Amino acid sequence: MSHLKNDRFIRALLKQPVDQTPVWMMRQAGRYLPEYKATRAKAGDFLTLCKTPELATEVTIQPLDRYPLDAAILFSDILTIPDAMNLGLYFSEGEGPKFSNPIKSQADVDKLFVPDMTEELGYVMAAVNMIHRELDGRVPLIGFTGSPWTLATYMVEGGSSKDFGKVKGMMYDQPKMMHQILDVLAKTIIQYLNAQIEHGAEAVMIFDTWGGALSTRDYKDFSLNYMQQIVEGLNREKDGKKIPVIMFTKGGSQWLEAQADIGVDALGLDWTIDIGEARKRVGDKVALQGNMDPCVLYSTPERIREEVATILKSYGNGTGHVFNLGHGIHQHIDPENAGAFINAVHELSEPYHSK
Amino acid sequence: MSHLKNDRFIRALLKQPVDQTPVWMMRQAGRYLPEYKATRAKAGDFLTLCKTPELATEVTIQPLDRYPLDAAILFSDILTIPDAMNLGLYFSEGEGPKFSNPIKSQADVDKLFVPDMTEELGYVMAAVNMIHRELDGRVPLIGFTGSPWTLATYMVEGGSSKDFGKVKGMMYDQPKMMHQILDVLAKTIIQYLNAQIEHGAEAVMIFDTWGGALSTRDYKDFSLNYMQQIVEGLNREKDGKKIPVIMFTKGGSQWLEAQADIGVDALGLDWTIDIGEARKRVGDKVALQGNMDPCVLYSTPERIREEVATILKSYGNGTGHVFNLGHGIHQHIDPENAGAFINAVHELSEPYHSK
Repeated sequence: MSHLKNDRFIRALLKQPVDQTPVWMMRQAGRYLPEYKATRAKAGDFLTLCKTPELATEVTIQPLDRYPLDAAILFSDILTIPDAMNLGLYFSEGEGPKFSNPIKSQADVDKLFVPDMTEELGYVMAAVNMIHRELDGRVPLIGFTGSPWTLATYMVEGGSSKDFGKVKGMMYDQPKMMHQILDVLAKTIIQYLNAQIEHGAEAVMIFDTWGGALSTRDYKDFSLNYMQQIVEGLNREKDGKKIPVIMFTKGGSQWLEAQADIGVDALGLDWTIDIGEARKRVGDKVALQGNMDPCVLYSTPERIREEVATILKSYGNGTGHVFNLGHGIHQHIDPENAGAFINAVHELSEPYHSK
Repeated sequence: MSHLKNDRFIRALLKQPVDQTPVWMMRQAGRYLPEYKATRAKAGDFLTLCKTPELATEVTIQPLDRYPLDAAILFSDILTIPDAMNLGLYFSEGEGPKFSNPIKSQADVDKLFVPDMTEELGYVMAAVNMIHRELDGRVPLIGFTGSPWTLATYMVEGGSSKDFGKVKGMMYDQPKMMHQILDVLAKTIIQYLNAQIEHGAEAVMIFDTWGGALSTRDYKDFSLNYMQQIVEGLNREKDGKKIPVIMFTKGGSQWLEAQADIGVDALGLDWTIDIGEARKRVGDKVALQGNMDPCVLYSTPERIREEVATILKSYGNGTGHVFNLGHGIHQHIDPENAGAFINAVHELSEPYHSK
């Protein structure tokens, strides 16, 4: 049926029966792995790593060579889009991403444009292409993007922010201007994800990292609304196969019902919510992805196993669950503990899936 | 009845009728006020400001001289308790609070003790005393503490943290040790708040700033449970007057029902939840304090007024609402906008209170 040798991840997202609960980790290609650090050192800097398809492919595959993961995720950065819009992305050591030309005025907003997927963002598509070829059906490849609101926070703040004073100041004071930014981002993201699908992504995920910083009303107007537009603009089928869409608002558990209504196949969950409770709230509408606290990985293989068991039991019988952490894996985690986590999910989940 | 010239704040917390919705701002004595900056400059550093009752009194009163606020809050730091336990609190410019002796081992935990409220923490009580005398019934004085879990995060991390790797690692791996820390903190906090009440605090508030970083299960076991112990240990009456207790877990909106059951008079709300929705969920059990996004204050007096109107309307008729921001006021806010906020609450709330 499928060209995929392991299609558990896709099947669980589409709520089709699986033999074991599939598992992957956000930021699985990352600094906790010595082999990642070696490739990054070779690249010189983070942006070169993202922009060199051979190196992006190398780090995307690394965790799969170490662990029996059920999905690969494109190695890239969420800020490729504003970078392609000429905001001048750079990374300063220890301070995270920065933009040399943040958005400050209506004139800056008017300069935003939908970048070309074969030009400015061609390197992303080259990486998707190369990873897909390299994977050769081993596991599905996840394409991804940041949400419009999340990208806008960096574009207006000029980098990371603790309290979002600038971007929210603009949202409250100049809502029309903010909507103009979000609109061009949503249009771009539709093309961006569709191009990733075209080049080989078998599922796509929207990371709404900062949607949880908004009020209920503003979350709906300034974040969820644009993610819905994106979901509606995606090509959900490729070569007769469905392309599942996952949406994840960190800190957004209180809005699950609204999230389940925008047409996605699955919702990501952070660790603050009990997954059984989440399943009750969304019913059959969507699959769920999550949700172990990444900090459990600081403990022991035994404790990790216990926590995996608790989450599996809370979700209960049947498909529709992709196991993951509730946020990206931290850089100081022992790779052995990550392995214990992945093995525990496979082993302990079997009884929840009927033969 | 009351020695208070303005007792709206106390009355609203106790769900007694009021003429207007009372309002105060978390961190109202803070860097957005030029007069605060002047006093802080005089003090030299932040800890001296906290530890000198005359200066703490001065900054506590400053916002009351500028705005018609309905409550004063003790100017102090949430980390006075671990400082009194000899963890060596200091502030490094731009990096926030740090401890020179963070908790790393069982031996460190065994050294923790309940500090003396007249010795190590005597300066806090002296400040409460002096502020209370200085206020002379103008408005009620709020005493406060950090929650055990929140204090523990700083004590184990050695300062602020983004992902709580150390403290959660300890919680997952050494739960007994973590409970021992939380237990000595809860015992201390009961004495600390009771001493503040004894010295003149007319209401008390527990700030659980980092409870929202926990899973539902761990929030209940490692944060809410200890706050309940504290609430049960407090002297809730002084000279025949009730002392209301407010509890605020930032990022904790999903657990409102459980919070409303620990015996507090009121719950603080951050801005992510619609206050009308929160009121429906907690019913008559508790009053609510909140919840405008502090970032609204970056906009204009007109926009601020509009947002105040929306929140008042969402809460609806009757008492039981103390207006506040959903988190502390930011340092770059224009003091005029803070004034517009406070005036808007008083003016626009009258129709919601029957004569």
